[in-house]
Amino acid sequence: MAEKAAECGAQALVIAPPYYFPAGQPELLEYLQHLVPRLPLPVFLYNMPSHTKVFFEPGTVKAAAEIPGIIGLKDSSGNMIYFHQLLSLLSHREAFAFFIGAEELLAESLLLGGHGGICGGANLVPRLYVELFQAAKLRDWERVSRLHHRAIEISTRIYRVGRHPSSYLKGLKCALGLAGICGDFMAEPFHRFRLEEQELVRQYLEELGILGKADE
Amino acid sequence: MAEKAAECGAQALVIAPPYYFPAGQPELLEYLQHLVPRLPLPVFLYNMPSHTKVFFEPGTVKAAAEIPGIIGLKDSSGNMIYFHQLLSLLSHREAFAFFIGAEELLAESLLLGGHGGICGGANLVPRLYVELFQAAKLRDWERVSRLHHRAIEISTRIYRVGRHPSSYLKGLKCALGLAGICGDFMAEPFHRFRLEEQELVRQYLEELGILGKADE
Repeated sequence: MAEKAAECGAQALVIAPPYYFPAGQPELLEYLQHLVPRLPLPVFLYNMPSHTKVFFEPGTVKAAAEIPGIIGLKDSSGNMIYFHQLLSLLSHREAFAFFIGAEELLAESLLLGGHGGICGGANLVPRLYVELFQAAKLRDWERVSRLHHRAIEISTRIYRVGRHPSSYLKGLKCALGLAGICGDFMAEPFHRFRLEEQELVRQYLEELGILGKADE
Repeated sequence: MAEKAAECGAQALVIAPPYYFPAGQPELLEYLQHLVPRLPLPVFLYNMPSHTKVFFEPGTVKAAAEIPGIIGLKDSSGNMIYFHQLLSLLSHREAFAFFIGAEELLAESLLLGGHGGICGGANLVPRLYVELFQAAKLRDWERVSRLHHRAIEISTRIYRVGRHPSSYLKGLKCALGLAGICGDFMAEPFHRFRLEEQELVRQYLEELGILGKADE
């Protein structure tokens, strides 16, 4: 998959821990030591414990950062204590990049040493997150606060229409479909929102000014 | 994969919940309703929450048991309260089979209404688990107790040589290799035991009478 991605023009990869049989930290590190030298692109560790059950623990990240080819970490744990501890632990490695996964935490992560975000919502409203990034770099507190609250509004409404943890994914795919960016098809075991939820997402998108009102 | 398995002579399948993005219970049920009618073999639900994060909750099992093609459940949760509750909840479905995954729990599950086991250790010492099954069916308490304690001895020694949750898998593969049943290769991110652990496993296998002593 990495080779195909490189052929298609990808610039970097993310690696999450294998997510069925849970690996111990030394096993994870050994896995990275074997795999990363064989990959055609630079690699971000992808910390996603809600989906993999396994954290890249701070000591593992520190050791993995010494493997040539690993250039950063994307953290989707939502645990800002972990994030701040990593920033501190790797502060000697200026070129090592820490990206945040949850867009709700992009503002605080950028203000306190993070380097960027890989945000699902940026598929829908990329400008918002680019502006938030720029405002944080300029320490434009008022603008950061305003844009942060808009990100939270999107999250609170669009990502909370469903009843299960998939609500985030279903809400985002539904919004992308309504905005004409891509279809709302989802791979099994998930399915697109039914009409009732679709209409709620449409209403929220209109109220948030992301979609024009149908009668305008 | 199911079609290939059927071609090769498999008699049934197990389905664990998809294990990356966690599914809600109604989503799991819908997934089974879509998938099972398209499968060429009868299906056991495979409850393996330590690896999937997701339980087949009792209400989901009850509803899934109505789907033609689903004939039973293999439970590897290690949670006997869950197992007993399922047996009770599905007691009207005589043909629905409950198998236990953890061989350490085979004795009690058989004595209290379970129908069999799918036990890793049966790859190494199949006779032990067949005898345990037969003894339980005959209510031969003394023999059940003796065989049960042998199963626990194997588990306590062979499966506890390593330091991580993979210890079970590594210990079993190592033992199978030493017994000449198959190689001890493991797929990434795991690796076979190193020499030191291999020697411990060999020693335990000899003490347990599973391997003859080298100098005999």
